[in-house]
Parts: sequence; C-alpha cells; structure tokens
Amino acid sequence: MTFEVDFEPLGRRLPCQSGETVLAAAQRLGLVLNATCGGEGVCGRCLVRIMAGQASPPTPTEEAELGGRIANGWRLACQAEIQGDLRVHVPPESLATAQRTQTEGHSLPITPHPAVRAVALNLSAPGLDDLRSDAERVRAGLELPDLTIPLPVLGTLSNDLRAHDFHATAFLRGTALVGIRQVGTAALGLAVDLGTTKLAGYLVDLASGETLASAGAMNPQIAFGEDVMARISHAITRPEGGQQLQMAVVTALNDLARDLCARAGHTGLDILDAVVVGNTAMHHLFLGLPVRQLGLAPYLPAESAAVEVSARELGFDFAPGASLHLLPNIAGFVGADHVAMLLGSGMLDREGNVLGLDIGTNTEISLLAGESHYACSTASGPAFEGAHIRHGMRAAPGAIEKVLLRDGNLLLQTIDGRPPVGLCGSGILDLVAQLRTAGIITSRGGFTPGLSHPRLRAGGSSPEFIVAWADENEGREITFDRRDVNEVQLAKAAMRAGIDILLARAGIAEQEIDTVIIAGAFGTYLDVRSGTAIGMFPPLAPERFAQVGNAAGAGARMALLSMEKRKQAAEIARRVQYVELTIEKDFSARFARALLLE
Amino acid sequence: MTFEVDFEPLGRRLPCQSGETVLAAAQRLGLVLNATCGGEGVCGRCLVRIMAGQASPPTPTEEAELGGRIANGWRLACQAEIQGDLRVHVPPESLATAQRTQTEGHSLPITPHPAVRAVALNLSAPGLDDLRSDAERVRAGLELPDLTIPLPVLGTLSNDLRAHDFHATAFLRGTALVGIRQVGTAALGLAVDLGTTKLAGYLVDLASGETLASAGAMNPQIAFGEDVMARISHAITRPEGGQQLQMAVVTALNDLARDLCARAGHTGLDILDAVVVGNTAMHHLFLGLPVRQLGLAPYLPAESAAVEVSARELGFDFAPGASLHLLPNIAGFVGADHVAMLLGSGMLDREGNVLGLDIGTNTEISLLAGESHYACSTASGPAFEGAHIRHGMRAAPGAIEKVLLRDGNLLLQTIDGRPPVGLCGSGILDLVAQLRTAGIITSRGGFTPGLSHPRLRAGGSSPEFIVAWADENEGREITFDRRDVNEVQLAKAAMRAGIDILLARAGIAEQEIDTVIIAGAFGTYLDVRSGTAIGMFPPLAPERFAQVGNAAGAGARMALLSMEKRKQAAEIARRVQYVELTIEKDFSARFARALLLE
Repeated sequence: MTFEVDFEPLGRRLPCQSGETVLAAAQRLGLVLNATCGGEGVCGRCLVRIMAGQASPPTPTEEAELGGRIANGWRLACQAEIQGDLRVHVPPESLATAQRTQTEGHSLPITPHPAVRAVALNLSAPGLDDLRSDAERVRAGLELPDLTIPLPVLGTLSNDLRAHDFHATAFLRGTALVGIRQVGTAALGLAVDLGTTKLAGYLVDLASGETLASAGAMNPQIAFGEDVMARISHAITRPEGGQQLQMAVVTALNDLARDLCARAGHTGLDILDAVVVGNTAMHHLFLGLPVRQLGLAPYLPAESAAVEVSARELGFDFAPGASLHLLPNIAGFVGADHVAMLLGSGMLDREGNVLGLDIGTNTEISLLAGESHYACSTASGPAFEGAHIRHGMRAAPGAIEKVLLRDGNLLLQTIDGRPPVGLCGSGILDLVAQLRTAGIITSRGGFTPGLSHPRLRAGGSSPEFIVAWADENEGREITFDRRDVNEVQLAKAAMRAGIDILLARAGIAEQEIDTVIIAGAFGTYLDVRSGTAIGMFPPLAPERFAQVGNAAGAGARMALLSMEKRKQAAEIARRVQYVELTIEKDFSARFARALLLE
Repeated sequence: MTFEVDFEPLGRRLPCQSGETVLAAAQRLGLVLNATCGGEGVCGRCLVRIMAGQASPPTPTEEAELGGRIANGWRLACQAEIQGDLRVHVPPESLATAQRTQTEGHSLPITPHPAVRAVALNLSAPGLDDLRSDAERVRAGLELPDLTIPLPVLGTLSNDLRAHDFHATAFLRGTALVGIRQVGTAALGLAVDLGTTKLAGYLVDLASGETLASAGAMNPQIAFGEDVMARISHAITRPEGGQQLQMAVVTALNDLARDLCARAGHTGLDILDAVVVGNTAMHHLFLGLPVRQLGLAPYLPAESAAVEVSARELGFDFAPGASLHLLPNIAGFVGADHVAMLLGSGMLDREGNVLGLDIGTNTEISLLAGESHYACSTASGPAFEGAHIRHGMRAAPGAIEKVLLRDGNLLLQTIDGRPPVGLCGSGILDLVAQLRTAGIITSRGGFTPGLSHPRLRAGGSSPEFIVAWADENEGREITFDRRDVNEVQLAKAAMRAGIDILLARAGIAEQEIDTVIIAGAFGTYLDVRSGTAIGMFPPLAPERFAQVGNAAGAGARMALLSMEKRKQAAEIARRVQYVELTIEKDFSARFARALLLE
C-alpha cells in the first residue's frame, strides 16, 4: 500500500510504501537526518515526532532510548515504519547541520502589529490657487496636522510626490512619516542578530509576518579581535578604533540587507523598520557608544533601555524615515540578544521552572522560578566554536558534528558527508562525552592511566586520541589530547557553575527544573545527552530539554512584527535580576567542582 | 558750566560745556554721526532725540526740517546746544555705516524662556552593588524615567559623567538630554540670519538674554551663483550641486560659530540651541531639501512649518544634543527671514496700519491692516547692493553713502571718511533723488534735454553725471548715467508696485498707513526722504518711517530666547495671506506706472 508522509516544519511530502522506515523516506526526499550509527537504532540521533497517523509499534531499542517520550509521539526515524498516512515533525537537532537553516525563515505564530503602517495618500495637485508647501499638503491630506517629517524624508518628499503624481502610499510610524512609495509597495522590515562571530539577517513582510529571505554573514569586526574583550580593547586603545568597528559592521549589514532585498525582488528603500539585537558590546559598538566603562569592572552599559535611531543616521540605505530599534540590554554581559532569545524561545510562556541557555563565547543563562527571573553571563570561551582546540573548526563542510564510540568502533558524522576535516562544537562535546563514558578519560580530564586502546597513542607530554587516522582519511590525521579536554572542561564548568549559582539564588534543586531551553547555533546541534554525560547540564532526562535554534533571531523578528513584543522586551529587561557571578563568593568553589567530567 | 550727556543706546557718556552742540559732543566721544553738509543744518541727517534734559530751543532750520517731530524731542545734533544734563537717543540711521553695527548685539527686551534648561545632576557613583547603566542612572537622578537621550549624547554620556565624577549640570530640551557639562557652564545659543549674500551670527547667553558676540561673513554659496535663482539652478543641474551648496554654508556657519565662541571665551560645545532664519531657498539649501519645485511655478516650498533638526546631523560641532530650529516659511519667496523680521521689528505690536519692508535682492513686503496680514515678495534686484551699477559697490570703506546736491555743490559722505571709491546703496538712492529733485533727470529717468550742468558730460550714447572728478579724487573718476538710473527705477518700481498691490488688496489708501517699518542693511542706511522723493515709498512724512536695522537677526535672537516667540512665529506664518504678484492682473500696469521717478 502507498501512504503519504508529511514532513514538518519543512513542508515537504511524498508517497511511501507501507513498511518503509521514516528515515528511508526522509532520505528519499533529500532530508539528511542525523544517523551516526548508520540507522541501526543505537545513536538515537534521528529523533522525530509522529504528530498524526499510523506507524509501527516502538521497538525495544526505542523503548530503551526514549522511555516516557514515546507517549508523546517521539520515535527514532530508523526504527519507525510507515503504516498509514503520517505527519512527522523533524526537530532541528535531528537534521544534519547543512539542512538546519532550512527550518529558519518560516513565518512566526504572531499577529503582525508592526511599528509602521500604510495609509493611502491622495492629494490634489498644487497650482497658483493652492500654494501650500508639499509638507502641509501631505499633513492636510492625511488629516494629521502634527505629522512630523524627519529631514531625510523631507529631502525626498517633493520629488516622491511628483513622481507618483500626488497619489501614493504613505508609511507612518506613530505621527512620523517614514516614506512615500508607489501604491502597492510592500512594507518590509529587517531583523538582525548581531553576533560576535556571525551576523544573521531576516527580511520580513511586515503585513503578513512572512520571512521573505534570510542569510548569515561573518561579523567583519573579527579582523579587529576575536572576542568581545579584544574588540573593546581595540575601540579604547585606537583613536578611531570605535569608528572602525562601527563602520565595519554597518557596511556588512548594509551588504547583507542589499543581498536579502535582491533575493526577494526588492530594494533597500522598501525596508521601513528594523530591529537589531546583539550582546551589549556588539550593541554599543554598532551604535558608536563608549565601551571603556563596559570593559572595566563593574562593566556598565552606557544605555540599557531600548534605543530607537534613524537608520539613515547610522548609514543605512533604507527608506528615508526608517528606524532601527535596538531591544534593551539587561547588563554589561547580558544584552539585547538574550532579551530576544527570551522572547523568541517562548520560554516565558512555559509552565514551571525554566532554565534557558544561549551558548556562545559568553553563555547567557536565565532561570525562571515562580515570579523570579535571574540571569547571568559566564565566560564559557570559544572551545565549542572550535577555537583553542587543536583540530577544532567552525561548523562547515567536513566538520565532524557527531561522534559515537561503540564496541571500540568510532562512528563519525560530518557536515555534508565530506571526509573529516576537523571537529566542530557538537562533535567536540560528543567526543569528550564518549571518551568519558567509555572510561578512556577520567573525571579530571586526563587519559586513564595504564589504559590501552587502539586509538590511544603516546604523544609529546601525554597521550593523544586518534579521531581519524591519516592513512584512512586522505592523509589528514585528526587527534584530541588532554589540553583539548581541558578546554572543554573550562567551558562546561563556566556554564554549570552559572547554572548552579542561579539555582541556589532561586532556592530550587536541579531536579526541580521542568524545562531546559538551549538556544544558539551550537545549542541547536549539540546532543543534550553528551551535555548531561559530562555534567555541562544538570542530570535531567533528555525530554526536559528543548533546542530552539537561533531564538535571538526569532525574537528579533517578533519584536520587528509586534509592538506588544517590544513592550514585553522592556518588561523583561526591567524584571530580570542580574547576578554578577564574579562577586558571588561561591563561584570559585562551584567552578572548581564543575571542572569534573561527571 | 559742565553738564553730562548720555548717548543711548550706545551707553556712552561724557562731560560737556554749556553751549556745545550735541554733534560736537558726539564727535569728541568718537561717535560718527551723519553730517553730509558738514554740520550746517541743511542735510538733516544728524537726527537725534532728546529723551531728557535741557537743550537750546529749536532753530528755524530745525523747524523747517523736522516740523511736528520736534514736539517728540527730535532735533538735529548740529543745531541743538547743550544747556543741562542730557539723555540723547541716537537712531541707527543717524550713525555712519562703520559704527552702526555697534548698536547691534545689545540685549533684547525679552524675558528669556529658552528651549533648553539647566538641571543639577548629582548621582551616586556606580559599584558592584549598583549596576544600573549610565543612562538609567541619569534618568533616575533627574527623576525623568522617560528622558530620551539622542544617540550623539549617548555617545559621550559615559565619559562625560566620569569626567565630572557624576556631579554635573544636565541640559534638557523638553524630556531630551542635550548634554552633560561641568557645573557652572553657561548655556549658549546661536542665532543665524542666513542671507543670500551675507551671514550674520549672534552668540547669546540663554539665561540672561545677552548677546555675547556677533559677526558677519559672506555667504560662500556666492561662488555658485549670485542670486537665489542661480543657486537653485546649480542645485538642480549638477548631480552633487545641492550638497555642494549645503556643505559650503554649513562650513561657513561652523567657522562663524567657532569664531564667535572664541571671542566670547567659549567652545562650540557650549552652544545648546540654535535658531536659523533665511529666505525659503536659503532655508532649503541649508537643510539639503529639494529646490526643483521651488524654482518652477508655482514656486512651492517642500516645507513651510518650523523644522527642528539635530545640529550634529547637519554637521555642527555644538553640544551633542543641540538642535537647530528653523522658523516657518510663508511661501516660496517669503521665507523664515521675513517671519523673523516681523518678530524682530516689533511691527506686530504697532497700532494702526503698518507696512513693513525687508529690502534686498528680493524685497519682502508685509501689510498689517486691521485683522488682516498680507505679504508678498518682489524681485527688486541687486541695484541697492551696488550691483549692476557702473560705479556701484557694497557698503565698504570708501563707499559714498550719503549724497547732497546743494547750490550746485555736490556733498559726499563716505564710509570711514575715506576718499570715494564708488557708490553703495544709500548713496545711489540719494544721488537719484537729488538729481531728480534738482531737475537734472526727468521722471522717466533720462537727463533733462538741453540742460547744462557743470557735472554733466556728454557720454557715449547719452550724458553722464560726474559724481567725483578724477583730478580731485586721486585719479578715480566716479560717474552715473542713464542705465544706472534705469536700474534704480526697476528696483523701486518693483517695491512700489508690491506695496500698491497690498494696499489695494487691503482696501486702504497710502495715507492711511500709520507706520512704515524698513528693515535690512540697506534699509537701515537709506534716507527715507530720498525714497519718498523718487516714489519708492508712498509719500508719507518721515516720522511715519522707522528704520529697524537687521530685524531678521533680532527676530532670530528672540526666537532663540523665547518659546513664546516661536509659537508667535508659527501663528504669523499661519495667519499671513500670501499674495503672488505675478498672477495679479494689475501688477504690470502698476509696475509700469511705478517706473516713474515721482
């Protein structure tokens, strides 16, 4: 028999034979699900959720792997066989890296109520008997005597009115004129997640809420320093340093916006509004604000409230009256991107105690417990971005993204299925978890003394683990040694100590956490079981974790589309109790304890 | 006996002997009063007003010259002898050109109520127990939770707060922060009259209303075209034309402001607010607004309402949050400078029917009659600025500024008493009036046929009048011929036709005009009797005229100092009924009639 299977949220469907596995059907569609074990049911990474329809009963493998989650429809795609029409949800963490971005860009479940509205403008043409100025004519036509017209709009108003013969669409933000455009022109907005490493841009139709195009780009400020502190230092120590950094990112965002517009068949002039989120340092450097006080204790932002500035003033080729809205910052190291993550992850709407992590070079952590909301930032370092790891790399084709050590065999999954080039964050985390679980390394991070293993080789000062042999991998050897393990320990200890401090502050035990939300690129790709295995996360069942992808980007889009969400962002920033870890007397002790891989 | 004589409004006094003339006393003080006739009581230009004290009784010469004005204390300084302590008012038109600017810069009779106010800012310093952002700290300290902080202010806020150890003066405009300055810093404002030819700047103490320094400069846009139409054409026909013109004038004003600040012992950062007035074209070019529609019938401004823009946005080195306020325009050729002139001349407070003229290349004319206010603009041309006149020149040292033809003798007064170089506006007007009064030229502007006069010489196509013989004037001959007369006819006919149209519109006769206000540089220096003699002004007694100097500059200062005056300016612009002369069917006939010198 033939059935139809729908894959959500990708919106793809195909006819399938009875008895075909969901994994096989997905592969026929070109969907690359994680399947490190090759579909043998042992790696547990091809997790899907049957939303409707008939599949084969769960296998013992699945029961061991998934436990109670089966009741909610969770299955392993390699085990579940199609026995009727199916609707299958594929969570982003089950997709191989290269395909994950496809889940982005979908319209958000939000009723658009944007800052900018369209109004029909039908004016009588001027003549010797009607000598009103163009601006007064528009004010009268819109019946808005208090209409303000920013200088850049006034600079094109006369020509725009005449180009459209005094019949056009006026776009307004409150009582301010944003621009005059041809009747029928779409109102577009741009949402930007301004990361230390990467920029993400989303071109959104403000009326429908639809994301028309999205794209990422490297943050060109990297040329001036890899992390936030290096950039702050550049801005402080060079006379034009701050301006250099600002210009670099403005230029890159202008290019990104131009590219998005071109792909959607629009021009920058169609962008009427924009929302930008980033950590506090990125926020300040983008606006050209001083960062000296941000780089020195007590690390204060110049501004924590939401900022609204003219896009033209910052150098953007958008509609002449377009604004940039920057969401509020919480503290010097918990910025607008965390506020956006809180919005975009939906974690504020969850029941119970919710822990939220946005993992990056700095990891921001929020804990919602009852009426309280605590947040902190912790310097987890760039290990999970592949930096400071000997064979580490960014998540790019050829990066090992999944690792499974089974019966002495090391199974690797790489991005795009290319021959391994190095290890990206999720692969590094998997590898350490697998080495620890197999007893190859101790809880202190060293290789177990006296252990012999076919992939262990005596290195310079200490042994190293061979991830890929040169002779089996086109001459490219990939190894992992104690220093690499130590980098992971530092990163995970920073996160775990931050989590523990917040739990203590809220007075709840780790088992009382109902949901752990994990956001960010690495957060989407990591295997939570690896995270719990090495104690990076509290020891909770996998089903309590939700990996939400680029929630900051989603939050930026929500704030772009909804004035209510902007208000909510302001409330969040006001309500959060920021916890400065460096002055918590327990922090050092907790950090030291969290260094253990257990 | 010795008495004390006070000269107002210059604020100078000196002891005088009984019987000394007021003119002689003034000369001893270094005040150069007009005295073309050399103090013989015949030129009538050393007019002063005795405000208090005892002077000799009026002479028959004064009675013939001044008539009823004597009852109000008006005297000729060369005739009035000191007989007691005196308080003497010297009107600007009685001062020689070089000294007239000294009457400017005095504090205005206005209670300051500026846009910007100073508030003490005393904040607790941040620490690990108080991690508020700098902006939130300021909002809390000022108890202004809705305080907006423009981006340029935010850009210096953190450093400013720390430079002053969190104790400073905050300057606010409404709920917007203009800047943070050291305690005790003066709040300064800049008023600018943006003329087509000249720029005038006034640095004003916003608290006291005192003008600390004033200066003029040439408008560098002259390099791109002498008059408004040439500049509009430059802006329209060159790709970067508009920007060129904008940059030229912004640079010049920045230089002017810097110069004024240096002279008053301040820096541009002390300027917290500015008011700019100019004709509509200067206004638009300054703001970078489109001017195409302004240069083509029906000559519409892009904006007629008041405009408030960030000084930084336009490129001014003022306080980071300083604004530029541009008064409203009335029409394409009646701009914010006319609104400022209406404010600054006080003509709105006068009783009866008031005619106001601001004479320049374009002359703006207002007529207040009952509840009505009509205004028009007329292309009077640059003859009275010395252009298009063979030996014409601007009012500079050596320019003939007064001319008296008496008993065949030609008496000349030059600026600074230097040997004559050419004729400036007031001298040109005097000369034509004297030639006409003496019957040397006819009402049509030609030299009277068959007349022989020692200073008349047969020229190329027509005779010419010798104003200065070469052999008596260091080899420099100065002449005046029919073409020169014709230029004056065109200028005066344009003005008079405009006046007549407004009178007709208001339905009042010229004798019903109670006061004629004459503003502008040339308007201050001209002899109103010369103006009435050739029919440039209606034939009214001299005492109905008031010459008010640069009333536009005074109005700009009033608007800088007083929010009420800004409101009044908006009301003026709303209330004025603009009259477009070019479509008045009577205009050509009235213009033709007004060409006659009578």
